Amino acid sequence: MRALVTGAAGFIGSNLVDRLLRAGHSVVGFDNLSTGQLRFLQSALKSPSFRLERGDLLGLEHVARASQGCDIVFHLAANADVRFGLEHPRKDLDQNVIATWNVLEGMRTNGIRRIVFSSTGSVYGEAQVFPTPEDAPFPIQTSLYAASKLAAEGLISAYCEGFGMQGYIFRFVSILGERYTHGHVFDFYRQLKDHPDYLDVLGDGHQRKSYLYIQDCLSAILLAIERAADKVSVLNLGVDAYCEVNDSIGWICEHLGVKPALRYSGGERGWVGDNPFIFLDCKKMRGFGWKPDLDIREGVIKTLDFLQNHEWVFTARA
Amino acid sequence: MRALVTGAAGFIGSNLVDRLLRAGHSVVGFDNLSTGQLRFLQSALKSPSFRLERGDLLGLEHVARASQGCDIVFHLAANADVRFGLEHPRKDLDQNVIATWNVLEGMRTNGIRRIVFSSTGSVYGEAQVFPTPEDAPFPIQTSLYAASKLAAEGLISAYCEGFGMQGYIFRFVSILGERYTHGHVFDFYRQLKDHPDYLDVLGDGHQRKSYLYIQDCLSAILLAIERAADKVSVLNLGVDAYCEVNDSIGWICEHLGVKPALRYSGGERGWVGDNPFIFLDCKKMRGFGWKPDLDIREGVIKTLDFLQNHEWVFTARA
Repeated sequence: MRALVTGAAGFIGSNLVDRLLRAGHSVVGFDNLSTGQLRFLQSALKSPSFRLERGDLLGLEHVARASQGCDIVFHLAANADVRFGLEHPRKDLDQNVIATWNVLEGMRTNGIRRIVFSSTGSVYGEAQVFPTPEDAPFPIQTSLYAASKLAAEGLISAYCEGFGMQGYIFRFVSILGERYTHGHVFDFYRQLKDHPDYLDVLGDGHQRKSYLYIQDCLSAILLAIERAADKVSVLNLGVDAYCEVNDSIGWICEHLGVKPALRYSGGERGWVGDNPFIFLDCKKMRGFGWKPDLDIREGVIKTLDFLQNHEWVFTARA
Repeated sequence: MRALVTGAAGFIGSNLVDRLLRAGHSVVGFDNLSTGQLRFLQSALKSPSFRLERGDLLGLEHVARASQGCDIVFHLAANADVRFGLEHPRKDLDQNVIATWNVLEGMRTNGIRRIVFSSTGSVYGEAQVFPTPEDAPFPIQTSLYAASKLAAEGLISAYCEGFGMQGYIFRFVSILGERYTHGHVFDFYRQLKDHPDYLDVLGDGHQRKSYLYIQDCLSAILLAIERAADKVSVLNLGVDAYCEVNDSIGWICEHLGVKPALRYSGGERGWVGDNPFIFLDCKKMRGFGWKPDLDIREGVIKTLDFLQNHEWVFTARA
């Protein structure tokens, strides 16, 4: 197949591009390189089956042109800066809602029928049921990031219903692994590199989190688009376990051989709108025969290995 | 209090303006008069407590300026053209999502803390539970209209969480009564005026619908903003009953004294994305001591009376 991947130079996008190319597919990558890294596409750019379109999803015409001739769109580009949403509230609207609408319009113009979308377990807001299934009680949104992702989910579903498209919406827990460039492992590693004797931790360290390894995430997506037959499939993606931030700190410190003093900012959550607990029921996805290979600890270690071997990501993101 | 009412010249907006003025409040009306009718504000415009700002919600600066000095915003302006959403998909994004974001930004700029929002029972999509409660299973969106309303709900909730606002989100069934200018009673009345001998009906006439009378709707809203204490209150608004389109046809024909041949377009729903059944559980709103005065039939008759006495609305909307 011929796929458009938005956010192709990002963490998840670039890993997906490599997987698709390895499987023999042809790929058009779309990225504005605002947070994506050209270096993540080093290998892809050598392939005759890959083309990179450097552009912004807010430019409808460019999106439409880039998607010409594709059979499927993997729409991964997003403002993933969950934490600072309140400092620039328009960013989520632009990059997560309007950008998604442009992708859908580009598809409609070109008669492309299939769209894969990276949503988030944050859409469950203050979930009351754990692990949280896809049909949990209709939640109230608590962050602009999640609200904008849910808005995009809605637009995609409405386009599927109205224009005969097929949608695969994945609600992720946090993903980590190679090319991971933000989130707590990234922050903690950077801190411990600068000052191995202490570590500043947002919240009280008891926030429970669930993490999925990037290759397990991609295996799920690639399997689901083969197996899921519904007009719109909404699928949670995570592991059947969670950890506390403190557990993760333990693994990181052990792996790096450091014993920092822990300085907690305190409180139940890292920041306003942070979900204290995202733990997803992934039965639906497992029903397709998928299961993750790596557990949370293994994913954290893989991430540390990557960071240790690619320290340039810290300066590239400065 | 001093209220900004968006969509002030519309069906619900103009009735709300009159109620607020009658209760002694001061009101700034905002409307671009694209579908609103200046005539609906005839009485309001005579009041020294009312000011009309003719403007478009897509102009952020104008919205922000208009809302200066207000304590509360009733955000009712919307693209309510549910049926033809697929013919102009950008309209819902602009008028329901981006416009809502502008209203919220205007509020944030001016330190306004309370927002009332008119959402819709359509956000429940293909509901599986009837009557449908506010915490029904997380639905998949089926129309651009509903998707855009849900997106607006999410933005409002996230602003409430992030910026310390208080939100009142009402999910309406269809509203009817004085100044009603679209929907099935409007269409049927117009048809029967033109050709009393036959009536074209979308679908098979068995679509079940629930309707609420405008004054009952406004009483609920005005009561809820006194009583509801949550940061974000999501409240269904409807009557505890439903009818079939065929029932309504019976009441209309009886009231008008006509016996048309019924010509059904057939099928379970009126159009792609139409919800075959919206019937809301309104226990939460009733918990505040509210109950509607009029039943569906009485609401339909009130609407017919209004249309018979204000036939200009048919040409004004041409």
